[in-house]
Amino acid sequence: MRRPPVIALISDFGYRDWYVGVMKAVLLSRCPYATLVDLTHEIPPQDVAAAALVLASALPWLPKQAVALAVVDPGVGTERALIAAEADGRFLVGPDNGLLALALDRSRRKKVVRLTQKPYWQKSISATFHGRDILAPAAALLAAGRSLVSLGPVQRRIRPLSGFEGIRGNRPGGGRVVYVDHFGNCITDLEAGMLKAGERLRVGRRRVRVVKAYAEGRKGEAIALVGSAGLVELAVNQGSAAKRLGIARGAAVTIEHRP
Amino acid sequence: MRRPPVIALISDFGYRDWYVGVMKAVLLSRCPYATLVDLTHEIPPQDVAAAALVLASALPWLPKQAVALAVVDPGVGTERALIAAEADGRFLVGPDNGLLALALDRSRRKKVVRLTQKPYWQKSISATFHGRDILAPAAALLAAGRSLVSLGPVQRRIRPLSGFEGIRGNRPGGGRVVYVDHFGNCITDLEAGMLKAGERLRVGRRRVRVVKAYAEGRKGEAIALVGSAGLVELAVNQGSAAKRLGIARGAAVTIEHRP
Amino acid sequence: MRRPPVIALISDFGYRDWYVGVMKAVLLSRCPYATLVDLTHEIPPQDVAAAALVLASALPWLPKQAVALAVVDPGVGTERALIAAEADGRFLVGPDNGLLALALDRSRRKKVVRLTQKPYWQKSISATFHGRDILAPAAALLAAGRSLVSLGPVQRRIRPLSGFEGIRGNRPGGGRVVYVDHFGNCITDLEAGMLKAGERLRVGRRRVRVVKAYAEGRKGEAIALVGSAGLVELAVNQGSAAKRLGIARGAAVTIEHRP
Repeated sequence: MRRPPVIALISDFGYRDWYVGVMKAVLLSRCPYATLVDLTHEIPPQDVAAAALVLASALPWLPKQAVALAVVDPGVGTERALIAAEADGRFLVGPDNGLLALALDRSRRKKVVRLTQKPYWQKSISATFHGRDILAPAAALLAAGRSLVSLGPVQRRIRPLSGFEGIRGNRPGGGRVVYVDHFGNCITDLEAGMLKAGERLRVGRRRVRVVKAYAEGRKGEAIALVGSAGLVELAVNQGSAAKRLGIARGAAVTIEHRP
Repeated sequence: MRRPPVIALISDFGYRDWYVGVMKAVLLSRCPYATLVDLTHEIPPQDVAAAALVLASALPWLPKQAVALAVVDPGVGTERALIAAEADGRFLVGPDNGLLALALDRSRRKKVVRLTQKPYWQKSISATFHGRDILAPAAALLAAGRSLVSLGPVQRRIRPLSGFEGIRGNRPGGGRVVYVDHFGNCITDLEAGMLKAGERLRVGRRRVRVVKAYAEGRKGEAIALVGSAGLVELAVNQGSAAKRLGIARGAAVTIEHRP
Repeated sequence: MRRPPVIALISDFGYRDWYVGVMKAVLLSRCPYATLVDLTHEIPPQDVAAAALVLASALPWLPKQAVALAVVDPGVGTERALIAAEADGRFLVGPDNGLLALALDRSRRKKVVRLTQKPYWQKSISATFHGRDILAPAAALLAAGRSLVSLGPVQRRIRPLSGFEGIRGNRPGGGRVVYVDHFGNCITDLEAGMLKAGERLRVGRRRVRVVKAYAEGRKGEAIALVGSAGLVELAVNQGSAAKRLGIARGAAVTIEHRP
């Protein structure tokens, strides 16, 4: 028997309502052997950029052939396209609003199609929930082994993620906080390789020393280290860096080279 | 091989404690091949009406033969009955306190039994957690293919859901907000068919225009549309209607016919 | 076919970020047939004691052969050991910081090994996420049927759980609130057998009567009863005992014997 296909989900639906459950019901109706994994459903409402970072961080860990279904879709019911993609042996499904852009940026082999095959959709399409009506059916088909190109015509270009160019670290010396996690760790757009040993990070007027593990920080001390997603983050050992430093997403971070 | 049976869960247990996990452990101990789906566990504590709406909204999307296990049970440990039901080819398990009433109202073919077969329960029954001790074992049996009538005698009538008659829309012209989701969308008890093109909704002193998709609303504008559950809802494009209109569950909503 | 192995997860990662999803991705990459069950990921950050109680409460309900993967790990990246254990036919994996101590205390047959077999780990070990890099691979191996002793050498003693000795009820007459659940129920370290019929509980200046079920309490009345985990808890019928009594974790509770 083929191993059960994995479908990973990410959305801004929250856990309070029935929206995630209904999307899973559609997935299991069409791909009953799938194993479903929640990446998160607590993306702040309509925050495409946060979802894009979560998706790009988690994707490389999914098993090959897994499908990531991403639904943060402020444009639902308008003319924005819905797309599916193959990236280094995994699949992505979501709206073409920048949500898949970071993950595709970081992939080598990739192909994108536009979802146009209405026979695969729910029979009646709501104007408010394309995650359930169009995207979940596409994700289920891919999980069940259907080919990407059977879902629609190849699309050469996708919409970029606006306001997030920094993730590639192409601003010399400086970066920004792009995500604050629930521990209060402040993840920046500085890639691991940009930080040299002995350097310090400057956040506002503070200087923060670079360590290897959270536990190297003294109690209450703000530190910088390379986090599990391969990005430089600000942290406080057993505390919240966001609270300690008084910063939020968007805060500027500068690498201070040794004299 | 038979496709893995789906058991969908809904409760007011929250995600913080171990109660959901234990209920799932019981389900998997007795039906190891089940696929478990959380509808939600963030029903406000003891809010039977909110859970009834979630259950009725999600049930039609579950695969046939799926079992919905619903535990919002303020009367646990008292003499309220526990029941199981078959409704249009799916199963429901829960306390007889109105929780299953909306879902059964909306079903055509249905049958209800009272759970009385103690040999199927946990050996020792706590006074506080019948979800684990009685309901989960019943749900697991149904998922594993056991017949409904093997669980207990047929029960002709169930307890209605108090304070929720409006869901059938039997008050001419007006309705109420029955559920506020985590986006701040305010779902009313007006069914899709009650709203004609060109009409407007009146909420307090405000008039709200009717559109087809969230994205048709101007920034910050309150709008009305038919939501994914087939009910009229108030929304704000990329915002919260509950905040914008200053309303909560119970708020009156009137359809304003064109002159 | 062997029944799908169950892996139960507990952590302080929250549901907002991608950390849980990535850990599940690693589990499914290495044990594709596993059924994953979330006990909870909302342990307060770094609160080893709360996680230890949740784990000890849930473990006996898991199917035999199930694996519980517990990650609350303030010492990640330092020299604290990572361990795996077998306890009455189930498996535990986590850091050796007291997290597994209560569950092992309550088990009869048990064996602990230290995780030292680097070939089983992720190839590149981060300094911040051993849950993903070392613990999840170990849990997946156990779920797939690998023997405990293949993971590393036997370890005779584990670190105890600091500040939690009361759970065994070895202080005569009195106890403490050790956990407040999301309903506001205040779970104490008094075991069921310590409370005799007709006794009352004293919390501060209040006396609380002992009942069998939540619903026996009058509206707003604080009551004491044996909860689903076999521990005495303070509750309010359809309300929050923590709010009603104005207490939190650590509050002293005294059994008042009849004169």
